[in-house]
Amino acid sequence: MEKPKTRLFVDHPLGEEQAIPLEREQAHYLFGVMRLDAGAAVAVFNGRDGEWRAEVTQAGKRGGTLQCVAQTQPQSTPPDVWLMFAPVKKARTDFIVEKAVEMGAQRIVPVQTEFTNSERLRVDKQQAHAVEAAEQCGATFVPTVEPLQRLDRLLADWDPARRILFCDESAVGAKVSLTAVTPGPWAILIGPEGGFSSAERDRLRGLDHAVPISLGPRILRAETAAVAAMTAWQMAVGDWS
Amino acid sequence: MEKPKTRLFVDHPLGEEQAIPLEREQAHYLFGVMRLDAGAAVAVFNGRDGEWRAEVTQAGKRGGTLQCVAQTQPQSTPPDVWLMFAPVKKARTDFIVEKAVEMGAQRIVPVQTEFTNSERLRVDKQQAHAVEAAEQCGATFVPTVEPLQRLDRLLADWDPARRILFCDESAVGAKVSLTAVTPGPWAILIGPEGGFSSAERDRLRGLDHAVPISLGPRILRAETAAVAAMTAWQMAVGDWS
Repeated sequence: MEKPKTRLFVDHPLGEEQAIPLEREQAHYLFGVMRLDAGAAVAVFNGRDGEWRAEVTQAGKRGGTLQCVAQTQPQSTPPDVWLMFAPVKKARTDFIVEKAVEMGAQRIVPVQTEFTNSERLRVDKQQAHAVEAAEQCGATFVPTVEPLQRLDRLLADWDPARRILFCDESAVGAKVSLTAVTPGPWAILIGPEGGFSSAERDRLRGLDHAVPISLGPRILRAETAAVAAMTAWQMAVGDWS
Repeated sequence: MEKPKTRLFVDHPLGEEQAIPLEREQAHYLFGVMRLDAGAAVAVFNGRDGEWRAEVTQAGKRGGTLQCVAQTQPQSTPPDVWLMFAPVKKARTDFIVEKAVEMGAQRIVPVQTEFTNSERLRVDKQQAHAVEAAEQCGATFVPTVEPLQRLDRLLADWDPARRILFCDESAVGAKVSLTAVTPGPWAILIGPEGGFSSAERDRLRGLDHAVPISLGPRILRAETAAVAAMTAWQMAVGDWS
C-alpha cells in the first residue's frame, strides 16, 4: 500500500475506525489545495496516538470527515531535550522553530536575553509553524512552543536536574567536547545574534548544571547553531545514538 | 583596540600598508549604508592573506581606498570537505550555500539528480551569497561555488581518493555511525527533497569510496541535513575535533 502523500496533524483522538471531523481550514487544505476526493488516503497524527492511515469519508467545502484505517507508526516522543533560543528576525525565528521540530526537541522555549532584539513573539503562529514542521518531517510528536520568557527569571527558577548545554560564542575556536554530556534531561541554549552579555555568561558559567559548548572555529548564526548543537546532543545521548 | 563592526571581502592582495581600491558597490556599502568616514576601521579578507584591520583613507560616492594596518587573523582554510547538494527552492538553496560556508565546506558543488526540481542555478549569485556568508561568520576563506553538474557524470569521473558521505534518507531510523569516517578528503552529498532515485541509491551503495549515513529518525529538510552532516563530519575528523 502506497504511503499517503498528505500528512495532517489533527487535534482529535485516533484509533481503529475512529471518525475525525475536519475543521474548515483542514477541509480547505485537503479538498481545495490538495484536491483529494472521498476515498483518498491521508496520514494523520495527533501527537499522542502515533500515525494513522485515514480515508476521506466526507469531503465538503467547509468541513468533512476522515476515518482511521490502520496505525502506520507507533507514537514516538523525542528524548527529553528542550531548545531555548533568543528570537531573531522573523524569518530566522521561523527557521529555528522548524529546525527544533526536525531535530527532535521536546519543548521550544524562546528566551529574552539582554541582547535579544525582538521582544515579541506570536506563540500561536510559532506553534502552528511547529505543527507544519512535524507534518513535513514525519514526526508523530509536536513540541510545545512556550511564551517568551526572560532568561534571568528562567535561570532563577531552574530545576538543576535538567542540565543546560549553552553554546558559548566566546569559546569560538575551542575544541568541541561532549564528554560532559551524559544521559538525562537537558536544555540546549542558543545565544542571541549579539551574544550573551558578560553578566549572563558569568552567571551561566557559575551554574553547576550548565555546560558550555563551542561550535567550531566559525561564528554560527542562531539557526545553524541550533541544528549543530542538537546534532551533537542527539549523537551523544539522544535518539541518533 | 575594538574590533571593526564592518567586515568586507576584497579581491585584492593584503599586506602591510597595502592600499585597497574600492569598487563602486563596496564604496556604496561602506560610505552610503554603513556611513563610515575617513579614518574608520574595517576588517578585510581576500580568502588568501588572512584578516586585516584596514582604515578608510579615501571615501567617495563611487569609490574610495582602504589601507591595511595590521593582520588580525592568519589565513585559515577549512579542512578538505566539499558539500554537494541538489538545489531546492531558491530561498532554501540560498540557505544551504550560507550554511556550507558557516560550517566550513571547502567547495560547494550543486548537483542535478533524477529528482532535482531546479535545473538552473545562478552561480554568480550563489558565489556572492557565499562571500556574504563568509563576511558574516568571521571566516577568512570563501568556498568556490561550482556550476550545477549532473550527479551521474560527476560519479563517473570521481577520484576515489575522495570519499563520499551520502545522507541516505531511506536509512531514516538507522543508528548513526561515524566509524567509517576516517581522516582524508571527503565530499558530503545531500539528496534532493524527493530523495535519491533507486538507481542513484544503488549506484552510490555500490561505490567502495561512498559511505551512507543516517541522520536520525526524522526526515530532515535539505538545509537541515547539510548542517547536521557537516556537524557530524567536523566533529569526527574536521576542524571541530
